[in-house]
Amino acid sequence: MDRPALNGRPDPAALARALERLSARFGDRLATGQAVRDQHANTLTLLAAEPADAVLFPGSTEDVAAAVAICADDGVPVVPYGTGTSFEGHVNAPFGGVTISLARMNGILAVHAADGDCVVEPGVTRKALNEHLRDSGLFFPVDPGADASIGGMVSTRASGTNAVRYGTMKDNVLALRVVTAAGTVIDTGRRARKSSAGYDLTRLMVGAEGTLGIVTAITLKLSGIPEAISAGVCTFPSVEAACDATIATVQAGLPVARIELMDSVQVRACNLYSHLGLPEVPHLFLEFHGTTAGVAEQAERFGAIAAELGGGAFTWATRSEERSRLWQARHDVFWAGFALRPGAKTVPTDVCVPISRLAECVVQTQADLAESGLVGPIVGHVGDGNFHVGLLVDEGDADELARTRAFMERLVHRALAMEGTCTGEHGVGQGKAKYLVAEHSPGALDVMVAIKRALDPRNIMNPGKMLPG
Amino acid sequence: MDRPALNGRPDPAALARALERLSARFGDRLATGQAVRDQHANTLTLLAAEPADAVLFPGSTEDVAAAVAICADDGVPVVPYGTGTSFEGHVNAPFGGVTISLARMNGILAVHAADGDCVVEPGVTRKALNEHLRDSGLFFPVDPGADASIGGMVSTRASGTNAVRYGTMKDNVLALRVVTAAGTVIDTGRRARKSSAGYDLTRLMVGAEGTLGIVTAITLKLSGIPEAISAGVCTFPSVEAACDATIATVQAGLPVARIELMDSVQVRACNLYSHLGLPEVPHLFLEFHGTTAGVAEQAERFGAIAAELGGGAFTWATRSEERSRLWQARHDVFWAGFALRPGAKTVPTDVCVPISRLAECVVQTQADLAESGLVGPIVGHVGDGNFHVGLLVDEGDADELARTRAFMERLVHRALAMEGTCTGEHGVGQGKAKYLVAEHSPGALDVMVAIKRALDPRNIMNPGKMLPG
Repeated sequence: MDRPALNGRPDPAALARALERLSARFGDRLATGQAVRDQHANTLTLLAAEPADAVLFPGSTEDVAAAVAICADDGVPVVPYGTGTSFEGHVNAPFGGVTISLARMNGILAVHAADGDCVVEPGVTRKALNEHLRDSGLFFPVDPGADASIGGMVSTRASGTNAVRYGTMKDNVLALRVVTAAGTVIDTGRRARKSSAGYDLTRLMVGAEGTLGIVTAITLKLSGIPEAISAGVCTFPSVEAACDATIATVQAGLPVARIELMDSVQVRACNLYSHLGLPEVPHLFLEFHGTTAGVAEQAERFGAIAAELGGGAFTWATRSEERSRLWQARHDVFWAGFALRPGAKTVPTDVCVPISRLAECVVQTQADLAESGLVGPIVGHVGDGNFHVGLLVDEGDADELARTRAFMERLVHRALAMEGTCTGEHGVGQGKAKYLVAEHSPGALDVMVAIKRALDPRNIMNPGKMLPG
Repeated sequence: MDRPALNGRPDPAALARALERLSARFGDRLATGQAVRDQHANTLTLLAAEPADAVLFPGSTEDVAAAVAICADDGVPVVPYGTGTSFEGHVNAPFGGVTISLARMNGILAVHAADGDCVVEPGVTRKALNEHLRDSGLFFPVDPGADASIGGMVSTRASGTNAVRYGTMKDNVLALRVVTAAGTVIDTGRRARKSSAGYDLTRLMVGAEGTLGIVTAITLKLSGIPEAISAGVCTFPSVEAACDATIATVQAGLPVARIELMDSVQVRACNLYSHLGLPEVPHLFLEFHGTTAGVAEQAERFGAIAAELGGGAFTWATRSEERSRLWQARHDVFWAGFALRPGAKTVPTDVCVPISRLAECVVQTQADLAESGLVGPIVGHVGDGNFHVGLLVDEGDADELARTRAFMERLVHRALAMEGTCTGEHGVGQGKAKYLVAEHSPGALDVMVAIKRALDPRNIMNPGKMLPG
């Protein structure tokens, strides 16, 4: 297969020239100290940190365009950075160059309440946005867990617990402002709710991980804050029974807002962490959004479905404190993992399969963990067939690291064999680039490479990510 | 701007050679008679019909790939054809070549009920699909009115009355099989509900109007047939009041499945056509999907909102016959237009604006029609800010044709000035290609052209469509 040259550091003289020009234009907004460079490299995975040569803090689209134009002149890589909460080495700079931190571009530029949309800069985090929106009656529903930046969520095609009801980033972005590899500013769409006018550049940029351009403004679709929320939890004798209940719920047309699976290992972790005393069997955590009568009816319907399929009693509530109590184990997932193995590093990974294959995939994965001598609680966005394994790894143990890597590889191939994908929501970055050949037909990968080459012929936009080298 | 050579018929010798090779492979599935060629050219608009040199009826992806490979060798255009119900000359062959009719590729390849998806060939129509699904408890919700083929709906990014609840084609296609300009078969995705693994080639092909490849199989997301439906109709003193009620309904989080605006001219047409005796003022037609209790609650909530905003009584029902009766005017829209002006040709056009600008855009458009001496009832998918003008035109009157064209041009620029789009759901084709420069920033259009050129360097895939020449 004919691929672009994805390797290579810029010529040192060219790099020096670009940094000098950036410094002249941006002054102390260009940082070259080791500490700040290290802070902006990958830190959350087993991948080695690869800091850039400098970190730039632009304040506007024009700043980003000027910086990219300078880097483009000399073939210097640019690596966009939001909050650094991605899991696949997206923010590493394997070929050096300049990290472009969007942290200071954190303005909320407009809220159009009647249209149910807003325009934000990429450095706004989802919590800051929802805080800002609180009195508008609207909210931004995509919730990947971390308080990620909206720009990062766009670029990794983030989703999370609400996706089964509200969709993923691809469904909630109306338009983008993007700085291309040539330093040109483009708008990928307009504020109309829908359009059939041209190629869908918005969706092309969503999930492109900064390899086709840098997002500098985002028009987001917002949703109405529901009048009422009901939330609850239910035990199941097996992962299969929990998955069957999920399928039946979706088929019955119940508009579930969140439906989360936790395996027995994850429940044990939560018990250790918060002394919850939950039975250590699979659990489903659910949330319904609607009118007061509607969310009560939906919870009752789900309770009946669960009972038919072998589930325990469905305990649910609508008051906020009660809901928080019922969902506490789910909220604690990230930190609870450490209770299973204090001092370990968490290595999160995700795959996604058709929901009819989910139980099989989870059960095989549990067996694989056991055979591999690894600890990895499982949490799933089960309505979408997406699940996470939060591996707890002793970073100092080379043998365990090797077993971890081999497990992750088997997990991906297991999902692919079930018509699934190597990542439902974490993205490709460096960590999963090697799987794209197995996931996509060779012709499809050629099309991706052709697009990359057409839009970034010098390969300066976040090189070494997504497309296999 | 640097654009690909979008002009030019193939060399006659090359065309003859390609047709001979196609004939040798496909026998009488390659038709060259004038009648069949004419039947496959544009017939529904003011654009002149431009038939291809031949019409091919492939039976499989392999057939399409072989045909495209033959045409690619000799630089012969290929024009995909579904049911010919598009409105912007998408099926014309301005540079000749071969129309590829997908009509015989009308198999439903798989229905995965537990996963809520199905795989179909492009020639399946939406009604045939829903007929097939009827006993599965699932349905395919996108409804553009015409019984269009699924392949055509993919290619024009179709939507329609259900989009406010269920989304458009971009939201309901999980994956595509596509024959590229080189005759290569690619899959743009897998059956997993979501993925972050690579560029979103699915969404790039949805709405590309066959200019980047020919769709030969489609994996569609399906929805559960609702337990209950409530439907009703409500009068409003003005288009503004109807739009305000729509905005309030969406903001209240009422999960309306359809919300359709009809202006007073359209109501008059329906009265003439079916003797309905409706008051000739703006109407909203609504439908809610959910549980029995849920759809009753939603209808009552809407009634309260409408009453607060000056609407008349909201008459609604849940029984099928009653619902059909209440919605009869809406169902009659297309044919009712002729009652206003018997013998006229219908020239449909659409634009889409942010919903906060919809009333203003509709009212200005009504005034423009009056000043231009034109007859054009208006129907809107008001929840999306999308509306149609069904112009009724005397084709023999050159002056009226000129006024019609001038009106359509002003309509587009009016929508663009309100942050809208030149087409919400009809697509670009030949008719709206000239507006893409005004709609998109020049840089964005350059990106589209770069993609087109990278994926179809010889410009054989439906040339003369979408991108301005």
